[in-house]
Amino acid sequence: MTLHVRVDGASGERIHPMDRGLLYGDGLFETVLFRDGTAPLWQRHMARLASGCVRLGLPLPDAQALRSRCEEAAGTWPCAALRITWTRGPGERGYAAPASPQPTCVIAAGAAPVVASAAVECGVKVHLCQTRLARQPLLAGMKHLNRLEQVLARAEWQAADIAEGLVCDVDGNLISATAANIFVALGGTLVTPAVDHCGVAGVVREELLSALPVTVRPLTLEDLMHAEELFLTSSIRGALPVAECDGRRHVPGTFVRRAQAHLQRIGVMVAV
Amino acid sequence: MTLHVRVDGASGERIHPMDRGLLYGDGLFETVLFRDGTAPLWQRHMARLASGCVRLGLPLPDAQALRSRCEEAAGTWPCAALRITWTRGPGERGYAAPASPQPTCVIAAGAAPVVASAAVECGVKVHLCQTRLARQPLLAGMKHLNRLEQVLARAEWQAADIAEGLVCDVDGNLISATAANIFVALGGTLVTPAVDHCGVAGVVREELLSALPVTVRPLTLEDLMHAEELFLTSSIRGALPVAECDGRRHVPGTFVRRAQAHLQRIGVMVAV
Repeated sequence: MTLHVRVDGASGERIHPMDRGLLYGDGLFETVLFRDGTAPLWQRHMARLASGCVRLGLPLPDAQALRSRCEEAAGTWPCAALRITWTRGPGERGYAAPASPQPTCVIAAGAAPVVASAAVECGVKVHLCQTRLARQPLLAGMKHLNRLEQVLARAEWQAADIAEGLVCDVDGNLISATAANIFVALGGTLVTPAVDHCGVAGVVREELLSALPVTVRPLTLEDLMHAEELFLTSSIRGALPVAECDGRRHVPGTFVRRAQAHLQRIGVMVAV
Repeated sequence: MTLHVRVDGASGERIHPMDRGLLYGDGLFETVLFRDGTAPLWQRHMARLASGCVRLGLPLPDAQALRSRCEEAAGTWPCAALRITWTRGPGERGYAAPASPQPTCVIAAGAAPVVASAAVECGVKVHLCQTRLARQPLLAGMKHLNRLEQVLARAEWQAADIAEGLVCDVDGNLISATAANIFVALGGTLVTPAVDHCGVAGVVREELLSALPVTVRPLTLEDLMHAEELFLTSSIRGALPVAECDGRRHVPGTFVRRAQAHLQRIGVMVAV
């Protein structure tokens, strides 16, 4: 994969070894899909980033400048995936933040991964991870740089035909996939777990919550067994049905088709 | 503070913006005290680093080469504090680790902060933090790069006379300070909490566990109220009594003096 990386706007630059993003994971990121130069969920990405900045006490990026730089970075590809990394910048030793932090902004742009039409239509295989997510309301919902739980969960499988891993919290409640949110159809109702004690408030999840009738409530593994439908959402892949989870089959139905139709309407997905 | 930073052995280099240490906090660190070119707890630092590498599936550093580079970096100061940062190195997009990671090693060396003799003798003031640590056995004990909880806890106070903050887990058990372990004398027994569901297995803590009679058991805030003594341990500062916690006074006693005497004997502290 070829990535074009800009640090603070200048191409090819590198990160200061005392950047607090590296020292402590003291920062946030966004993974943004651009189609033909436009990011359909740009406002939601910026809202989440701003909310994370407030919660962590980070300076907010200049939204106008960030948008220009992202549009420029995305310009090379018909469909681009950008990772914006926003850290508290260089610091001295110790956890105390600098009084006047100089945030670091990294924009890494590449062609978005092609989502096979079979995945969109028939679904993907997933693994149920052993790795459990800690309960930490102070960090839940944010897309921060402390991602070792996800790294450990992702290390549980190597098989190329496994697209994702489902992850529970320490109490055994289903929360999300390693890099996607989950939706389940149960008794004719679309359900997704809250992300107030762990997990990430995904932008596509937020979009679907605003566009479709969805109940936010805890999901058990028992619920998973009885799920009529199961699908994943992410900024880059949109909504993908789960066809199989550790040997157990699921069939895509009307709920995921409705989600996909909405995401196609707003430009996150393309019709297959 | 002047820091001399080496990345992978070459002075003045910088970090790749797709380093997984920055992207996900995918790595570990050690903060090592050198006195006159020697690190008294070097073996314990290397044991903890190696244990963390095994748990995270990171390649182990070449111990001989790392030692030479650290000794060289520490050589400039009579008393130096080194931060070794060891990450999984550059990666592509996504949580999956590269099949053959090329770890990044950053060594940042500076003069160790001078510990005032008043702090060693009479003790320091600490704050009891509101920030709670999540329970995550998969990461507990390691000195990994996911440190947002500590950043949030450290942001709770600005007063220059507060030396540290005590932190509880989500269940209200006292675990540690933001960058130090804690020991409490209770009913004539020295007690320190376990670090198997959160916290860091500090090298001075390990040293004291091997040298003195210490009971490892949960500590409540109620215990803190009845503590006969309270002291902090860290690789750079050794053992420092707590003189005051949010207005409540503690008096240094025989337990902290015994710990300090041991740390002076092995070269972690100097006699005041």
